[in-house]
Amino acid sequence: MAQNGTWRVYLAGGIHSDWRSRIADGVREAGLPVELLAPVTDHGASDDVGVNIMGAEDDKFWHDHKGAGVNAIRTQTLIRRADVVVVRFAEKYKQWNAAFDAGFAVALGKPVITLHPPEHDHALKEIDRAAMATAETPEQVVEVLRYAIAKD
Amino acid sequence: MAQNGTWRVYLAGGIHSDWRSRIADGVREAGLPVELLAPVTDHGASDDVGVNIMGAEDDKFWHDHKGAGVNAIRTQTLIRRADVVVVRFAEKYKQWNAAFDAGFAVALGKPVITLHPPEHDHALKEIDRAAMATAETPEQVVEVLRYAIAKD
Amino acid sequence: MAQNGTWRVYLAGGIHSDWRSRIADGVREAGLPVELLAPVTDHGASDDVGVNIMGAEDDKFWHDHKGAGVNAIRTQTLIRRADVVVVRFAEKYKQWNAAFDAGFAVALGKPVITLHPPEHDHALKEIDRAAMATAETPEQVVEVLRYAIAKD
Amino acid sequence: MAQNGTWRVYLAGGIHSDWRSRIADGVREAGLPVELLAPVTDHGASDDVGVNIMGAEDDKFWHDHKGAGVNAIRTQTLIRRADVVVVRFAEKYKQWNAAFDAGFAVALGKPVITLHPPEHDHALKEIDRAAMATAETPEQVVEVLRYAIAKD
Amino acid sequence: MAQNGTWRVYLAGGIHSDWRSRIADGVREAGLPVELLAPVTDHGASDDVGVNIMGAEDDKFWHDHKGAGVNAIRTQTLIRRADVVVVRFAEKYKQWNAAFDAGFAVALGKPVITLHPPEHDHALKEIDRAAMATAETPEQVVEVLRYAIAKD
Amino acid sequence: MAQNGTWRVYLAGGIHSDWRSRIADGVREAGLPVELLAPVTDHGASDDVGVNIMGAEDDKFWHDHKGAGVNAIRTQTLIRRADVVVVRFAEKYKQWNAAFDAGFAVALGKPVITLHPPEHDHALKEIDRAAMATAETPEQVVEVLRYAIAKD
Amino acid sequence: MAQNGTWRVYLAGGIHSDWRSRIADGVREAGLPVELLAPVTDHGASDDVGVNIMGAEDDKFWHDHKGAGVNAIRTQTLIRRADVVVVRFAEKYKQWNAAFDAGFAVALGKPVITLHPPEHDHALKEIDRAAMATAETPEQVVEVLRYAIAKD
Amino acid sequence: MAQNGTWRVYLAGGIHSDWRSRIADGVREAGLPVELLAPVTDHGASDDVGVNIMGAEDDKFWHDHKGAGVNAIRTQTLIRRADVVVVRFAEKYKQWNAAFDAGFAVALGKPVITLHPPEHDHALKEIDRAAMATAETPEQVVEVLRYAIAKD
Repeated sequence: MAQNGTWRVYLAGGIHSDWRSRIADGVREAGLPVELLAPVTDHGASDDVGVNIMGAEDDKFWHDHKGAGVNAIRTQTLIRRADVVVVRFAEKYKQWNAAFDAGFAVALGKPVITLHPPEHDHALKEIDRAAMATAETPEQVVEVLRYAIAKD
Repeated sequence: MAQNGTWRVYLAGGIHSDWRSRIADGVREAGLPVELLAPVTDHGASDDVGVNIMGAEDDKFWHDHKGAGVNAIRTQTLIRRADVVVVRFAEKYKQWNAAFDAGFAVALGKPVITLHPPEHDHALKEIDRAAMATAETPEQVVEVLRYAIAKD
Repeated sequence: MAQNGTWRVYLAGGIHSDWRSRIADGVREAGLPVELLAPVTDHGASDDVGVNIMGAEDDKFWHDHKGAGVNAIRTQTLIRRADVVVVRFAEKYKQWNAAFDAGFAVALGKPVITLHPPEHDHALKEIDRAAMATAETPEQVVEVLRYAIAKD
Repeated sequence: MAQNGTWRVYLAGGIHSDWRSRIADGVREAGLPVELLAPVTDHGASDDVGVNIMGAEDDKFWHDHKGAGVNAIRTQTLIRRADVVVVRFAEKYKQWNAAFDAGFAVALGKPVITLHPPEHDHALKEIDRAAMATAETPEQVVEVLRYAIAKD
Repeated sequence: MAQNGTWRVYLAGGIHSDWRSRIADGVREAGLPVELLAPVTDHGASDDVGVNIMGAEDDKFWHDHKGAGVNAIRTQTLIRRADVVVVRFAEKYKQWNAAFDAGFAVALGKPVITLHPPEHDHALKEIDRAAMATAETPEQVVEVLRYAIAKD
Repeated sequence: MAQNGTWRVYLAGGIHSDWRSRIADGVREAGLPVELLAPVTDHGASDDVGVNIMGAEDDKFWHDHKGAGVNAIRTQTLIRRADVVVVRFAEKYKQWNAAFDAGFAVALGKPVITLHPPEHDHALKEIDRAAMATAETPEQVVEVLRYAIAKD
Repeated sequence: MAQNGTWRVYLAGGIHSDWRSRIADGVREAGLPVELLAPVTDHGASDDVGVNIMGAEDDKFWHDHKGAGVNAIRTQTLIRRADVVVVRFAEKYKQWNAAFDAGFAVALGKPVITLHPPEHDHALKEIDRAAMATAETPEQVVEVLRYAIAKD
Repeated sequence: MAQNGTWRVYLAGGIHSDWRSRIADGVREAGLPVELLAPVTDHGASDDVGVNIMGAEDDKFWHDHKGAGVNAIRTQTLIRRADVVVVRFAEKYKQWNAAFDAGFAVALGKPVITLHPPEHDHALKEIDRAAMATAETPEQVVEVLRYAIAKD
């Protein structure tokens, strides 16, 4: 009876595994009306986008700064547009931007789903507390979305 | 002359009668441009969704907590998306989540229509006061929507 | 070059002349991508909608109160949805709800166009000051919309 | 036990009776922790403030417009600052700015108390519906404030 | 080193036990810089405040409606003003207004602490999930406040 | 995998060069899902729109004021609607309205891209600081948009 | 009778004349309850604050960028805190940051008073339109504040 | 001339060095009108606060979850209350909650100052980009505050 519309789901964080494509596959197989949104996941392109487009910088700090601005146009716009934000923390790397995105999303009132292995449970306790669900696998994220969006 | 667009109407509260399908029938028969939104109304699925997807809990409190998080992804997203929120209080059960949804909707500036039998009038006086209309039958809700959306 | 999209224009206030249909005609003739929104303009239906749907009231105050709630579902939803709000003050009647709608729209950051004869200029000075434009004829409103929406 | 703090109450509308001083008297006699806020009630000073300070205008419309801007600095600031807005509609005059203030306050989520004689009930039904209380006398307004602020 | 300022804590819900005075006692004994806010807890005064001040109603629904409006001036103002909202659900009564207040507070981004006996855990799971803490005794609430406000 | 949807990009500022059409060409050639929004760039039409539609003014200040109101209906609506705001400062002219639009956009949380020659760097340091990227050519703006919207 | 409280007034823009001290003198002489807020007006200190505190930059763009960030901490905080924002445009200089501050303030719903010589009228028409008053002298600004804040 | 008032500064992040007390010392020595706000920095008390007050949990995840809720009452309230948020990232530890706080603060429009050693520059580029200033030492933070708050 209900027609819950199309949902936009932003996939924030870790770029070093296939978790985004596994969610995309799962969403497609489940036939969910979901528009997946994502940051740029090409690491080198992401780091250098500022200087590639607007000119080189001698100082690495400003090299990074220019790139981070361009990436923020994308990420902040898509998080504001999203209905749900999934935040992935992988086994290694600091991934502070993933945590930043989570805080940004929560302050905007967006429901967050965290996705990480159990060994990060203690270090991520504040973010998991602010999230609506904590998953260990991309397939669990798909199941949460399936329920939230399409369960009768 | 006016074309008041499509309206999204969220149907909150009671899951133990056919009130949602009666509203759906009425809206369809009236040809209203309405997208009906709803929580999951399968009681068992709703209670257990957290542990079903993300693993069992020994403690019933956390069992419920996990499920409530997943349900909140759905309900808070749909209430934010709704133009109008209908809140149903049935004859029995505590239905505190229905009242919670009403408060949540009112604080967001959403017009609320309450739907309940007259014997609840006194107990629901604060919520009826915050609502724009109080109906006794689903058919009255349909008439309110018909007027609000489609009356010339 | 620019494609400024579809605009929603809410037509608030006076129901005793043909000003809404003149704006509708003008918008259509100009081929503007405008969705016109409006309150119910059938005076009797508007006054009695509450009791007609949800049961009679002995007290005229509550008779009016019930009807005003149902009308508010429509008017507040459409004002929130509108890009521009046109507020019409006719030659007579108090039309306090028109002024209320103007204040509501301004507080939400919506641009307001007032439409009234010059003899109301002094009495409407606060509302004209809060508006972006003050017109005397519906055709002037159409020209303002044409410029705002479709001028190259 | 509770200490509900100081409340700011903005008194909007009618300037042609002693209603504001009666509320001020009542509030003082009741010992309420209330800071009363008000627009300028000197009619001539209010009408001419723009040209008095910033130079004459040949055109009455702009004479009014300049003054309305200066008054809006005061009224909009004080309404935003208020906890409660009382809106007075007297026996005569159009008082569209009172209705505008009511709409502005409601859209900001401020509770409104309307104050008017019963003969305005029908014309003010939309605003009374949006208000939390409708009083006929300033003394009733004081009683409402006393209850809301200081009742144990 | 840190000076976390004065906190305003609104105590919503149940009026049939001494829980508010136990929190007040605990806060005072702990020397916390807390301003406690509360609804009117005199049941009869609360029910009848509308008609007591503004005149009798024949119809019980409108009798309640008038009173609920006056109470809402107080409760909505104080919830907006609060830093933290404690919501008490007692052993019996429907207490839908407590749940409504919780939803209202959560939508405004206020941290909520629920206070109820364990037998309500299942019925309150959605509200407990939206809360930051769930306590069983007023003394636990005091401890949570002491930590949040004054722990070094 | 990701489908980042259609983006609305508002092009604010300078009207004396072909920068808007160069961005439009670039966006079209890149096949970006972008809806470009713009103010009226016909200088004479923009200056005189108020008096052309609603009647002449003797005083140049009010002539300008009337026109600025009509233009603001367009510009404020489109900035609110935009995902990204590009602000162009050309070699000469004061262009205070471009800077005003930038401040307006930043306060609404919109990402801003500034576009100006390097000789303005010092005078525009506050606005460049508030922007996410600073470009010298329209082609660089297109590249930033291409990355933000369509990079895999 | 009314006690309109203390007002915070932010003085944005031009740093090359004594306009701020003339407003401060006028406010003091009038005995107004005003807290004046201002950016740093020491031009050299303002330009170099970033590098002075956090280390030199080879590139002038980043030198400016670092300083603009520190200044923005001050200006954005004070504009958000202000009840009224006065924006001064002097006879020369581009003063784009003044216009930016005006746009920022208007988007936040702050009433703006512009202060500039008449020869800027045309170039500032959009900002004057968004303002509540336009003054030519600091003494006129003081009179506007005196009326808005302290007129009976 | 200007009196910029008292500022509230929240000190987020790292608890394993004396950076907070160095800022407190610097602020006091500079005589700044600053109220410093902080999370609980007693690591054990912070981890166990949930179970200490509201009862033990068998499962470490829920042990952490309960504690994180209580801490969030404090941190979210204080970040909302702050004018400026300083976020410290120390040499080691994941400190995801520091990054979360930064994202939360930025989404609320709070100016952020990051404080970290240069070796974190690349990993923190997104957060440094969203910040208004990046410092290496607590003394630099004090200087930024001194300028922002108290420079003439």
